Amino acid sequence: MFLEAGLLTRRSVRQFEAGRKIPHSDIEDLLKIAMYAPSGCNRQPWEFVVVEDEKVKEKITEIHPHASFLKDASAAIVVCGDTNQELDENFWVVDTSAAVENLLLAIHGKGLGGCWCAIYPYEDRMKAFQNLLGLPENVKPNALVVVGYPVKTPPQPKDRFKPEKIHYNKW
Amino acid sequence: MFLEAGLLTRRSVRQFEAGRKIPHSDIEDLLKIAMYAPSGCNRQPWEFVVVEDEKVKEKITEIHPHASFLKDASAAIVVCGDTNQELDENFWVVDTSAAVENLLLAIHGKGLGGCWCAIYPYEDRMKAFQNLLGLPENVKPNALVVVGYPVKTPPQPKDRFKPEKIHYNKW
Repeated sequence: MFLEAGLLTRRSVRQFEAGRKIPHSDIEDLLKIAMYAPSGCNRQPWEFVVVEDEKVKEKITEIHPHASFLKDASAAIVVCGDTNQELDENFWVVDTSAAVENLLLAIHGKGLGGCWCAIYPYEDRMKAFQNLLGLPENVKPNALVVVGYPVKTPPQPKDRFKPEKIHYNKW
Repeated sequence: MFLEAGLLTRRSVRQFEAGRKIPHSDIEDLLKIAMYAPSGCNRQPWEFVVVEDEKVKEKITEIHPHASFLKDASAAIVVCGDTNQELDENFWVVDTSAAVENLLLAIHGKGLGGCWCAIYPYEDRMKAFQNLLGLPENVKPNALVVVGYPVKTPPQPKDRFKPEKIHYNKW
């Protein structure tokens, strides 16, 4: 029941307490949960770059068009997939997306706030993050997760249940 | 804390109580939670086909190479993305993968068992599911989620925490 409640109350947070830093032990708790996501044949092809350096954070707001609110956040977590570790071509996108969702739920479960900013499928953003972070060619960034202490508890998400999206036995 | 505990104990379930059916009200609870996943600009491009018909289930085991255990499960839920609803090309893969992870966590939270069987990125499987379920050309199947009542509580997942996958500020 508690798990389900958490799944229904998570939502994007974009306002953070400036200067308040998440301890590395908590960052590792969050990333541990991301690493418990399912993956094709359990290959776990993910890698995580945690950006706390203010200069690198600023560079990120220059290469990502929708991440200006990173300024007050504690960290940017760039969730990547290693194409040398994935089960088959493009599987890294699926596996790392599940890991991002676990990460966002973990952030919510800890009373922190987070927001998923897309890098994939935008080739220009992927390239820019690879250059900025020095990622090897085989390590592809999927998502930028901005995380910090929320200024306020965000309101509940609007009702997203759409029964018309459920089809029985065939389309 | 409870949310986090659920995230760390979910794992694939492939043995189900034969003949025991999940009520549709529970199926809808599960899919509601899937629909609370984040998506690019909140486009929610997902669609779900719930297969309970025994003949269609059998056909699925013929077109998917790793789903023979569907036989005893209550249902197969095919999670699809509508490319007419997605934010940008290939965004449906990301959004629906997050929805699949929410669905698996919801299944776990309800004491049911589920397993993610990949359809994407395999073109042949995608085509076969489109044909079998009568999906329109713009509706792409990402994953087959097999769900049912588990025969036994599966053991805890092995430790998946790999601190070497965490990089600070750059690769």
